[in-house]
This record gives sequence, structure tokens and C-alpha cells, in this order.
Amino acid sequence: MAGAKIDQLFTNAQIATMAPSSAPYGMNDATALGVTAGEISWMGHLDDLESTALAKNVVVTDLEGRWITPGLIDCHTHLVYAGNRSQEFEMTLKGASYEEIAKKGGGILSTVAQTRSASEAELAASSQPRLEAMMACGVTTVEIKSGYGLDTENEIKMLEVAKQLGEINAVRVKKTFLGAHALPPEFAGDSDGYMAKVCHEMLPTAHTLGLVDAVDAFCEKIAFSEHQVRQLFKVASRLEIPVKLHAEQLSNLKGAELAAHFKALSADHLEYLDEQGVKAMAKAGTVAVILPGAFYFLRETQKPPIDLLRQYGVPMALATDCNPGSSPTTSPLLMMNMAAILFRLTPEEALAGFTRHAAAALGMESEIGTLEIGKQADLAIWNIEHPSELTQGIGTNPLFLRYFGQDHVNN
Amino acid sequence: MAGAKIDQLFTNAQIATMAPSSAPYGMNDATALGVTAGEISWMGHLDDLESTALAKNVVVTDLEGRWITPGLIDCHTHLVYAGNRSQEFEMTLKGASYEEIAKKGGGILSTVAQTRSASEAELAASSQPRLEAMMACGVTTVEIKSGYGLDTENEIKMLEVAKQLGEINAVRVKKTFLGAHALPPEFAGDSDGYMAKVCHEMLPTAHTLGLVDAVDAFCEKIAFSEHQVRQLFKVASRLEIPVKLHAEQLSNLKGAELAAHFKALSADHLEYLDEQGVKAMAKAGTVAVILPGAFYFLRETQKPPIDLLRQYGVPMALATDCNPGSSPTTSPLLMMNMAAILFRLTPEEALAGFTRHAAAALGMESEIGTLEIGKQADLAIWNIEHPSELTQGIGTNPLFLRYFGQDHVNN
Ligand SMILES: [Zn+2]
Ligand SMILES: [Zn+2]
Repeated sequence: MAGAKIDQLFTNAQIATMAPSSAPYGMNDATALGVTAGEISWMGHLDDLESTALAKNVVVTDLEGRWITPGLIDCHTHLVYAGNRSQEFEMTLKGASYEEIAKKGGGILSTVAQTRSASEAELAASSQPRLEAMMACGVTTVEIKSGYGLDTENEIKMLEVAKQLGEINAVRVKKTFLGAHALPPEFAGDSDGYMAKVCHEMLPTAHTLGLVDAVDAFCEKIAFSEHQVRQLFKVASRLEIPVKLHAEQLSNLKGAELAAHFKALSADHLEYLDEQGVKAMAKAGTVAVILPGAFYFLRETQKPPIDLLRQYGVPMALATDCNPGSSPTTSPLLMMNMAAILFRLTPEEALAGFTRHAAAALGMESEIGTLEIGKQADLAIWNIEHPSELTQGIGTNPLFLRYFGQDHVNN
Repeated sequence: MAGAKIDQLFTNAQIATMAPSSAPYGMNDATALGVTAGEISWMGHLDDLESTALAKNVVVTDLEGRWITPGLIDCHTHLVYAGNRSQEFEMTLKGASYEEIAKKGGGILSTVAQTRSASEAELAASSQPRLEAMMACGVTTVEIKSGYGLDTENEIKMLEVAKQLGEINAVRVKKTFLGAHALPPEFAGDSDGYMAKVCHEMLPTAHTLGLVDAVDAFCEKIAFSEHQVRQLFKVASRLEIPVKLHAEQLSNLKGAELAAHFKALSADHLEYLDEQGVKAMAKAGTVAVILPGAFYFLRETQKPPIDLLRQYGVPMALATDCNPGSSPTTSPLLMMNMAAILFRLTPEEALAGFTRHAAAALGMESEIGTLEIGKQADLAIWNIEHPSELTQGIGTNPLFLRYFGQDHVNN
């Protein structure tokens, strides 16, 4: 990088760096941004830029006053799955009971069955449009969890597909192992037995294949206990894999405290989080990932303790939780709006939730999430007059251009 | 039309006609649909179609199993306006009071000021992206209201822009005069005086120019009284213009009964509608236009009486209510999802709300809103396996192709 020249220059821009700053949105007064080999290498005024700093074949893009923000980071998704559950949704609205739907094979296990029977190619093909929809909203980094395979072969298949999606699209994919998402039918009544398999077969195998950037679990009465998750996190620690946790979504099992104890990157959902959990997260530096899509779709009424999280300075990320059962969405911008409407986050907090704090929830705060010299040139460029518009619109999408710096290096 | 041949043929389709039928979504077993001069002229099986029925230059489109529904109809929008109110939204979330915002010139009057000062060309340019976003969701007909001009010149300017948008885009625009939307600052304290001007100057002038397909008003304590709206509707009746009404959004002023008395096409919002109002609407054939976007954005808790509307057989349309203050959205599909999540409409009711019943809310049920022989070939073609997916996704957009038959005739 040292001495390397600017190969892409954006001019006539307004810049919301989202870096910690006294200015809202980390706005600075720079009106131009330079990229060198996929990294942000310069910000300032065109007048102050020496022509010798430019590469001979520099591409100059006049943004005509548009806004640049960091590319959006969706730090919690279940984007890879087969089938959909819309007819189950319809049955429920027509008055069917959960028993009737379960009898017809509905619920998460229907997604597991369809995901298991899909080939790798089929799974990639059904997931690709969702990824494209996210990218069309300005997403440059997406986390994708396994968790609909629930056996070694199919969990690995899901993670392989996630990896492939990152290779064939101009987007950064982080892969999270979520074998402990639900109890597969063949282990019905034996969640300890399944967790042992997760810990001693599934996770180590996936890890050996280089498919695990983080380990996650669903800590809930209907899923896995605090004790079981602790076993899993101990294995993850030994393998030196960072952990995250679906915690306090439907009740308070003290999952956030457990996550904090293991210095988790994030604890996610958190509707039933209490002050003790907030304190533990603050102390451990664990990010709170707020998921308004699932809250909305499940018609939940218990809201995550936003004021407490603010009070203790716990960073709040937002994510789509993209999944077929409780958050069938691919729109970060809509989640930003829901965070403002449902939880009263400010537009600036909402954008930080999909940029700076989302980066931290993936352990990538030194590489992405803000516009700073030396960081990846992952940019979202918007047809807006002010960044608050990104949150105010109910699912509108003013994206003008998505720029993924690494892609321009590889090509 | 008699004897005219099919000039566009869609094959390998699944068809949700949305016509009244015992089959869900008005599904029929036809797998092909023929269009002649912009109208639906044939539905059936390809095997049963004589080749002599086809025009020599027929265009054949293989839909590979995709679904055709009627093009979506957005029957209640304030799509034409200048500026936006995102910074007011941000101020509120940061804790500013309504007084502070009003002092800074916020609220509907800020949109009025910006719309008044915009030229016709500027107003069209700022509205065009919203119309394009709707069309990208499968919308083929959109109603657009005036109501941010609030004087003769500017109300006419808004309606002219609405008309132009319909002329330069492949979409049908219906223009509604909403001079009685709010009290303009120059009439502060004299709503009777303003209503007299609306009745005796603004409406007749706009009508003479051919710009008024329907007359609407905002009947609410903060806007115009039942008595004032009655004056307006009497004028509309004399001019033989159909009426609609923003009614029972924030309180119950018996607006729906008033609307029904004037055989209104629709009464809209209706959160505070009571059984007497429902009965009156049923008797008059007035459509209930449900607007979940505004309900959601305003964090309203009083829900429209969906069960009563069902019980009395009042047709329920849905619309975006696209506007800068209380429903900044352009997505009918997201409104369908919100209708299901917030009001428990079924996916079939939600789709009927943007097709058959929306057509009735515009008085166009004989021309559009269902797929039937002789109706306009306004089609939305979707990448879905079942129509319930249109409602289940939270703001997803699986549109494959929008076909606006009239456009192919004119070209
Ligand atoms: Zn999740
Ligand atoms: Zn309205």
C-alpha cells in the first residue's frame, strides 16, 4: 500500500464515515474519497489532492452531491435454506392451530427437511436471489449461519454453500456454525445426546474444513439449556473460535451473561434481557444484536431494553435475521425503519447498527464498518439529501451504487 | 375486438385471477393467457388454442411455471410532493417535542411550502422515482391525490403533474382532488372560509380542466368537520364526481356514515370505525381502504374493525398511503405483509386488497382488478411457487415482469 496510488476516486460526495465522532453520522467535510487496491486511502478536498497521487488509469466517479456511507453489514442471517413457509403462514392466518401445522410437517423442521434433501447446487440457487436482494440494498458483508442441516453432512453442506456464495458474488461472507439451532427429529427426547454430537463431531469436523468463523447456539426453553450451551462454548474456546448466542428472545435464561462470560462477539435478540445481563455484556464488550424483523413478525410485545443498553454503553447492531419462519426479509433498510418505529432507535443509531456495530458483532471492526483510511473500501452510495432518509422510508431503497473494493482488486 | 387475434400469449403460467370464485385466489386451471389489443382475450390450455386465433406477429412468452396475478392497484396515495420530512422524523426520535418541530416549520405545512415553491417540472422529477419504485413492485394503476397545494394554482399544479406522470410512464393514473386536506396558513382560524374556496373555486376550476376523477377530504378534528365535508360532497354530487373520504383515522366523527350517504367509492383509514359505520358502508357499497403503513408509522394501537368489515361483507382494499409524513413507503407488497401481521388479514385478502377491491375503490371494477376476458391486460408476473409468498415476505419483491397492455397498443 505504501506509495501506492489512488485507482478509484469518488468526487462531489457527502461522506458519513460512521466513525466515532462528535459530528452526527461521523460526517466530515471531505467531498472526495480515494481508493487504492480496494482500501480507502484518502479523504479530503479535490483541491488538496496532488495529481501525482493518482494512478495513471484512475477511475473518477462524480457523485453529484450524493452520500457515501460504509457498505451495510448484515451480521445475523439464516440466508441459506431451501423451500419457504408461506403456506404455513397462510394456514395460521386462516385459523389453523400450531398442532395442525406441526402435523402437516410445518415449523423449523420443514425447513430442515427441505434443506437436507436439497443438493448443494439447489441450495445455492435458492439462496442466491436473497443474497442479490441484500446486495441491492447496499450490503457488502453478510454473516450466514448453518442450522437447518442438524447433522454433520448437512451442516457442512450449508457452510460450503455460504462459502461459495461469497466466492461467486462481490460480497464478503462470514460463516457461523449453528448446529445447536434446534433438535433434529432423530434425536427427539435426547438433547444432551445431540449436543454431544454437535460438540465432538459436527463442530470439530466443520472447523477442520475451515468453514467456521464463529459458533452460535439457540439458548431457549424450546431449544438448548444454558448448561448445554456452556459445553459447546467450552469446545469453541478450546478451538479458539469466537462465539455468539441467540439469547433472551422468548424468556430470560441468562444467556447474555453466559455469552459475556465467554467474551462472545454478540448476544442476539435480547427482548427479555435484564439489567444484570446488560452489565455483563458491557463489561465483556459483547455487542447487542437487535432483530426487529422477528419481533415484528412474531407480534412480540416485550421490547429489548434499549435504554439500558444505551445507559451502559453496549453497542447495538441491527440485522435482518433473514429466515423463512420468523423474519422472511432481505432488507436492512426496512429493519432500520422498524428499529426506529418499534424501538425508537434514532436514524443515526440505526445506521451505526448496520455499519460500525455490525462490524464489531463479527469481530471485524478493524477492517470494515466505518470509512477510515486503511479500511476496506466497502461503500454504499445513496440518492439522498440526508442520511436520516435511510431510516425514515418504510422499506424504500435509494441505493445509487454499491462499491465493493476487493472485487476491483481481484478482477 | 370481435374477430381480433391474440397478439401476446403467455404460456406455462399459473393464474390467480382474483375474480370471485370458490377457488382460493380465483385460481383456475388455465396455463396460458392471451392478450388482444391490450385486453385479456383468452385463457385456457395451449392444446385447445387454434393457431388461427393467433396474430401473425404474436409475441409468445414462456413463463416457466411462474404466477400471473392482476397488476397491483394502489388506490390511495399522496405520491406527488416535494421535499421530505426525514429530519423532522430524526428530531422527534432525538426527543424534540411537536412544538419545537412546528416552530422549525415541520409537519404537513412544510410539505405544502416545498410543494408550492416547486415548479411543475421539479415536482414531477421528485415524484418520478416513487412511481418507478411502485411500478417495480408490479403496480399498473395508481391513484394520486392533490392536497399539498391548498390553493387553486398549486392544487392544479399537483393534478397536472399526476396526469403527466400517467402519460410518460406505462401506468394508469387516477387523479383525486384533495383540496380539503389541511388548512393552509393563509386561512388560519377560518376553515369555513377555506372550505368555501375549495367548494366554489378550487374544485370547479380543477374539474373544468378535466383533472378530477374523484373528490376526497380529511374529516378529522385537526382537519375538517363532518358539516364542512358535507358541503364539499354536495358540490361534488352536483358536478357528478364520485367521492372518497379520509375517515375515522384518529377519532370517530361518523365520517364513514357521511361517505356512505353520498355513495362514496371508499372510506379510508377507519381505525375508529364503529358498527353503525360498517353497516352504512355495506349498504352503500362503499369500499373500506385499510392503510397499515400509516397505522404502523404513527404507532397507532387502535386497529380498524376487520372482523366487523368481514361480517358485513364490506370489501377491504389496501393501499400504501404513500406520503412524506405518516407513510413514507412505495411498497404494496410490504403493506400486504403489514396487513397480515398487524391486522391478521389472510394473504388472499391482502392480494384482493391490492387488486379486485382496490379497483372498486376507484370505480374501475369493470375494467381492472381481476383477470377476466375483456378486462385490461394489466399483469404482474411473479417468481413464486404460491401466491401466499407475496404476503409472507417482509418487504421482499419477487416481481419477474410487469405487463401493461395499453402500452403495447399505443406503441
Ligand atoms: Zn437467528
Ligand atoms: Zn391519505
